[in-house]
Amino acid sequence: MPIVVQNIPRAERSVIEGLARAGVATVHEAQGRRGCLAAHMRPIYSGAQIAGSAVTISAPPGDNWMLHVAIEQLQDGDILVVAPTSPCDNGYFGDLLATSAMARGCRGLVIDAGVRDIRDLKVMGFPVWSKAISAQGTVKETLGDVNVPIVCAGQAIHPGDVIVADDDGVVVVTQSEAATVLAAAEKRLAAEEAKRKRLAAGELGLDIYDMRPRLAEKGLKYV
Amino acid sequence: MPIVVQNIPRAERSVIEGLARAGVATVHEAQGRRGCLAAHMRPIYSGAQIAGSAVTISAPPGDNWMLHVAIEQLQDGDILVVAPTSPCDNGYFGDLLATSAMARGCRGLVIDAGVRDIRDLKVMGFPVWSKAISAQGTVKETLGDVNVPIVCAGQAIHPGDVIVADDDGVVVVTQSEAATVLAAAEKRLAAEEAKRKRLAAGELGLDIYDMRPRLAEKGLKYV
Amino acid sequence: MPIVVQNIPRAERSVIEGLARAGVATVHEAQGRRGCLAAHMRPIYSGAQIAGSAVTISAPPGDNWMLHVAIEQLQDGDILVVAPTSPCDNGYFGDLLATSAMARGCRGLVIDAGVRDIRDLKVMGFPVWSKAISAQGTVKETLGDVNVPIVCAGQAIHPGDVIVADDDGVVVVTQSEAATVLAAAEKRLAAEEAKRKRLAAGELGLDIYDMRPRLAEKGLKYV
Amino acid sequence: MPIVVQNIPRAERSVIEGLARAGVATVHEAQGRRGCLAAHMRPIYSGAQIAGSAVTISAPPGDNWMLHVAIEQLQDGDILVVAPTSPCDNGYFGDLLATSAMARGCRGLVIDAGVRDIRDLKVMGFPVWSKAISAQGTVKETLGDVNVPIVCAGQAIHPGDVIVADDDGVVVVTQSEAATVLAAAEKRLAAEEAKRKRLAAGELGLDIYDMRPRLAEKGLKYV
Amino acid sequence: MPIVVQNIPRAERSVIEGLARAGVATVHEAQGRRGCLAAHMRPIYSGAQIAGSAVTISAPPGDNWMLHVAIEQLQDGDILVVAPTSPCDNGYFGDLLATSAMARGCRGLVIDAGVRDIRDLKVMGFPVWSKAISAQGTVKETLGDVNVPIVCAGQAIHPGDVIVADDDGVVVVTQSEAATVLAAAEKRLAAEEAKRKRLAAGELGLDIYDMRPRLAEKGLKYV
Amino acid sequence: MPIVVQNIPRAERSVIEGLARAGVATVHEAQGRRGCLAAHMRPIYSGAQIAGSAVTISAPPGDNWMLHVAIEQLQDGDILVVAPTSPCDNGYFGDLLATSAMARGCRGLVIDAGVRDIRDLKVMGFPVWSKAISAQGTVKETLGDVNVPIVCAGQAIHPGDVIVADDDGVVVVTQSEAATVLAAAEKRLAAEEAKRKRLAAGELGLDIYDMRPRLAEKGLKYV
Repeated sequence: MPIVVQNIPRAERSVIEGLARAGVATVHEAQGRRGCLAAHMRPIYSGAQIAGSAVTISAPPGDNWMLHVAIEQLQDGDILVVAPTSPCDNGYFGDLLATSAMARGCRGLVIDAGVRDIRDLKVMGFPVWSKAISAQGTVKETLGDVNVPIVCAGQAIHPGDVIVADDDGVVVVTQSEAATVLAAAEKRLAAEEAKRKRLAAGELGLDIYDMRPRLAEKGLKYV
Repeated sequence: MPIVVQNIPRAERSVIEGLARAGVATVHEAQGRRGCLAAHMRPIYSGAQIAGSAVTISAPPGDNWMLHVAIEQLQDGDILVVAPTSPCDNGYFGDLLATSAMARGCRGLVIDAGVRDIRDLKVMGFPVWSKAISAQGTVKETLGDVNVPIVCAGQAIHPGDVIVADDDGVVVVTQSEAATVLAAAEKRLAAEEAKRKRLAAGELGLDIYDMRPRLAEKGLKYV
Repeated sequence: MPIVVQNIPRAERSVIEGLARAGVATVHEAQGRRGCLAAHMRPIYSGAQIAGSAVTISAPPGDNWMLHVAIEQLQDGDILVVAPTSPCDNGYFGDLLATSAMARGCRGLVIDAGVRDIRDLKVMGFPVWSKAISAQGTVKETLGDVNVPIVCAGQAIHPGDVIVADDDGVVVVTQSEAATVLAAAEKRLAAEEAKRKRLAAGELGLDIYDMRPRLAEKGLKYV
Repeated sequence: MPIVVQNIPRAERSVIEGLARAGVATVHEAQGRRGCLAAHMRPIYSGAQIAGSAVTISAPPGDNWMLHVAIEQLQDGDILVVAPTSPCDNGYFGDLLATSAMARGCRGLVIDAGVRDIRDLKVMGFPVWSKAISAQGTVKETLGDVNVPIVCAGQAIHPGDVIVADDDGVVVVTQSEAATVLAAAEKRLAAEEAKRKRLAAGELGLDIYDMRPRLAEKGLKYV
Repeated sequence: MPIVVQNIPRAERSVIEGLARAGVATVHEAQGRRGCLAAHMRPIYSGAQIAGSAVTISAPPGDNWMLHVAIEQLQDGDILVVAPTSPCDNGYFGDLLATSAMARGCRGLVIDAGVRDIRDLKVMGFPVWSKAISAQGTVKETLGDVNVPIVCAGQAIHPGDVIVADDDGVVVVTQSEAATVLAAAEKRLAAEEAKRKRLAAGELGLDIYDMRPRLAEKGLKYV
Repeated sequence: MPIVVQNIPRAERSVIEGLARAGVATVHEAQGRRGCLAAHMRPIYSGAQIAGSAVTISAPPGDNWMLHVAIEQLQDGDILVVAPTSPCDNGYFGDLLATSAMARGCRGLVIDAGVRDIRDLKVMGFPVWSKAISAQGTVKETLGDVNVPIVCAGQAIHPGDVIVADDDGVVVVTQSEAATVLAAAEKRLAAEEAKRKRLAAGELGLDIYDMRPRLAEKGLKYV
C-alpha cells in the first residue's frame, strides 16, 4: 500500500516567486482568509521568506525513512512538507538530510513534528518551519507515502500545492489557484500601501474604512 | 451593551518611566509577587522594555473590529491590552494597525491571542507580547468593549493600570498603587546591587541571607 | 527526610569536554537514541553548547530555596539541573543566582520550570535551558533535596551524570557510560563528515545507505 | 499582607436557587454571553447542578493551607472557589476537607487546580469542578488570602458573587446583578420551551428565527 | 464566496450499518490504519456506537450560524461534522439544535470545538464527539460553508464520507471506499474471534503470530 | 541492545494487597508526598482500585510489539507499565491483548500513551490508566525493552516496583520500601478516621491541627 508518486503538477515559477514576495499574511487574506497552517508552526530562525512546490510526506511517528525517499523526488524550487501519521515531536531532519535536499534544489522544510541540528541549518541557510525542536532521533523501520494528499498542521495539502512561509507562519495555496491568488495579493499590497501613508499621518482606520455608521448601527455606545 | 469608555485615569508619566526602568521581575517582586501575566505571553522580538497605561479591549474570538475603535482612544504613552472573550490564536494585529497606533503615540501591544507581520513590526520597533504568532486573519463583524475591566492571560486589568513588559514577560500594576510600587522597586534595586557584588566575590546566599539556621530547623540533613 | 548529598561522582574533565564538542544530537545517537529531555526544554538564547556534571535539585512548586543550597555544592564545570516536584513554570532563577553560580564555576542551568532576568543572563553569558520564561517569583518556605536522583523533563538523572545542551535541546549521559559514549560519538562524527561530502555532491541517501532493496522488500511502490 | 476578609455580601437565597435551576448555559446567555470559566473546568462526577455564594481563596502553588482557613468563613449555601497564584494541578482538596466543608453547609468546590479522593467525594455527594484530578498532595507552609478578588480559570471573581455550576461547566454572576440575570434567564427559558416544540415538529431554525433574508444579504449561495 | 452544497453523494445504507457494527478500531485497521480523528475527540457520554454520512460545516470561531443552515441539508442517517476555521472550544451546539437535528433524522454530531447542554443531550440520546464541553455561547454574525471539504481534528473529510464513532473515538471512511472497507472489517472481525479464544486459553501472541524468529533476527536478547 | 529481563524482584503479596486497600492518595502521603504519576494519567472507567508489581515496557512511538513480548513475562498479580520513548497517544492496547494479559493473571495496565476498545475492556473488567484513548493503531516493526528502568508520566519506575492505581491516579512505591510505606499508610488511615468524625461534627481543622498560632506568626490578618 505505501507509495511514491513521481509525477506531480507544479505551479509556474514566476507565480511562486510572486507569492514568496507577497508573504504569508497577504497571501492568506488574498485567498479569503484560508490556508494558514496552525500557529504552532514556527521558523527555526527569523527572516526567511520562501515559496515553493510541496513534495509531501506521510511518515510514521518517530520514523524518518520516507524523508530519504522523498529527497529523490525533489526538483529545484520544491519544499518538503512532512506530516506524521500521529502526533510526534521527534527530530526527523538534521544537517545531513538538509545537505542532500539542498543539493537537489530544495528551498526549505515544513514539518508538523521536530527538527534538529538547528545551528547548522541556520549556518547553511536552510529554513525550517516546525512544531518542535528536538535532538530525539528516529528509526528507519516503517514505510509511509510520498506525494500523496496529507493533512499538515490542520490544512489539507496536495503534492504540488504552493507553500509560502515566513516569520508569520505557513500558508498553502492550491496549485490550480496559485495565479489567481497572486493577482489578488498584488492588488491587496498596492491598496495597503496607500492606507499605510494615511494611517502614519494620524488618520484613523475608523474613518478610512468608514466604520462609524456600522458600529453605531450594531449598537456601540461611547460613554 | 457594547461600550467604549473615553475617559480613563492614568498614572503619572514619571512613575510610568520609573517602572519601565525597573523591569518586570523587579516590579512584580516589589508589589508582593503579584501581577504577572501567564508565562505564555512572549515578546515577538527580544530587547524591548516598556511601560505604559492600559487601553483595554475585550474582543470576540477571530474578530479585530474593536482594535480599530480602540486606537482612537489612545494617548501618547499608552499600551493596547487585548483579551479575546474565548481562547483564540488568530492574528488580530499587523503592520497597518501598528502604523496607526504608533501615529497616536502607542508604545506597544499586549494580546492574549495572535499577532502577524512580525518582521515589519520588528523593523518598525513596535513591540508586542502575545500568546501566538499567526498569519490567520480576523473579521470585523461583532462588537466588543473598549476600556472596560478585562482578564488578560490570567490577570485582571483595569483601564489605566500600568503595564510593564520586557523579555521576562508582562506585569500589571494598578493605577492607584503605581507610585508606591515604584518606590519599593527602587529600594529593591539598590539592595540587589550590593548583594550582586558579594555573590560575584564568591560569598554564598546561604550566608548573606542567613539561611543556615532556618534550614536546620526545618530538618535539612547534609550527608 | 530532605537531604543534601555532598559527594558525588563526576566524569573526567576531558570526556565532558569531548561530549560538549559532539553536541546533543550526536551524543544522543551515539548512545542508542536515548537520553533526550523533552522537546519543551528550550535555550533562552541561541548558540550556547555546553557539557557538565549534574548537580541535581528536587524543588517544591514555586519555591527556589534549594537552589541557594545547591550552589554551595557546585564545583567548577558543573551544571545545575532542577526538577520541580509538580509541574510549575515560575521563574526560579535570575541574575543574582546566576552571579553566585558563575562565581562557583557553574556552566549553566537546566530547569523543567521557569527562569527570569533573561536579558541579564544573556549579557552575562550564562546559558539556561528551561520549560518557560516567567517573571513570576518564588518563595523560600519548603525544603527539597540536592544531589538525589530526579526525573527532569522525562529523563531520569543522577547526580554526576553528564549533561550536554545546545540549540537542539538537552541530553543526559550516565556518569559511568560517558567515556564509551564519547568514543562512539567521535566515530560517528567522522563517518558523517564523509557522508556530508557525498550528499552535497548530489548522491542520494537511498544509495549511500543502500536502502533500495529493503524499501522494495517492505513493499514500497513507485507510481 | 495576607488577609482574611470575614464579612462579604451575598445574594438573596431565592435568587441563588433560581440561578441553580436555570443552569450554566442559560445563565451565561442571560447575562450577555459573559462569565463562563474556561472549558478545562470539569465536574468530577456528572449530574450535579448547584449555585452558591463564592468564598474565594488565593493559594500558592502546591499549598492548601488557606483552604483550612477559608472553611471557617463558610456559611450555609456557600461555594469554595480556589485560584492558585500560578498554574498547578496538585490535589489541594480531599475527603477530610470536604467533610469539614459540608459540616459548614458548603455546596461544592470550584478549583483551577487539582482535587483527590474523588471516589469518596462522589459517595458523599460533594460536587467539585476542577482543572485536574491528582493524588499529588500539598504542603502547609505559605500564606495566601481568603475573600479577596481572584481570577479563576479566566474569570474575575469577587467574594459573594454567585457561582452556578453543572455538567456544562461554571459561570459567575456578580452579586449585584444576580436578580436581574435571574429575571432574564427565566424569560429565556420560557421562550426556549416554545421553540423546542416547533423544532421537534420539524420546523427549521432558519424559518423560526427568520434567518433566510439575512443569510442572503450576507452573500450565502446555495449550489 | 460562502456556499451551501445541496447534493452530496452518500454510501449505501447497509454499508453504513455494517461499519457501525464493526466499530472505530476495526474500521481503522481495515483501511490500513488510516482515518482516525485526533485523540482529543471524546464522546460526551459513553456507550454510543454510530455511523452515518457526513454533512460538513466550516464555521468561524465562536459563531454557530452555519449549524442552523446545515440542519436543513440533513437527511435521515446523516452526521453533522463541524470544523472551526481556527481553534475554538466554545459551545456551538446544545439541546435546541439537537432537537432540530433529531427531527431531521440526524444520528449525532462530531465537532472539533465545544458543545453544551450535555445533560439534556444524554437524556435525549443524541451522541456527540467533541474537543471540549463549554457553556460559552456563540454569535450568529459571520458566514461559513456547508458540505465543502474540511479538515476536522486532523483528518480531511468530504461531504458524504462515512463517519464511524464510538467510545474509542472517530474514524472517517471515504464514500467511495466504504464497501471495500466494510468487507475488510468483517474479515478482520472473524479472524479476531478465533484468536481471542486461543489467547483466553493462555496461548501467547508470540506463538500465535509466530513472532519469535523475527524478534530474534532483529536482535532481542532475553537475560 | 534491546533486552527482556526475565527475573525481577516482587514485593510480598500481602503488602501489595494492603497498598491496594490504602489507595493512591494515602500511599503517596505515607511515603512523603512522592511517587505520583502526572495528573494526565486517567482511568478509562471509574471505580477500580488495584495494586501490583510493575512489569515495565519501553516502547517506540506507535509500535506495540514489545507488549506482546512482555505478556510472556507476566505473573499473577502483575501490572503492565508502558512508557513510549517519545510522546505518543496511539492506541497500543485493546481487547485482544487484554484477553491475553488476563489469562496470565495481569491486574491492569498503566500506559503513558493511548488505549482502545475501551467498551470491551470495561465489560471484561480490565482497568487501564492512560494518557489518551485512541483507536489509532500501531505497528510491530521496532524493538524496545521489557523489565528495564523506565520513566512513565514523570516518575522513574523499576521492574517489580509496586504500582497503586485508583480514581485519583497512579502512584509508584519502590519494591524495597513497600512494607515500610504500607505501615505508614495504615497508621495514617487510622488517624484520619478519628479526624473525620470531629470534622463532621463541625470542629475546624484550624483547631484540630492547631494552626492558629502559626498562621498569626506568619502574619495572617483577619479584617
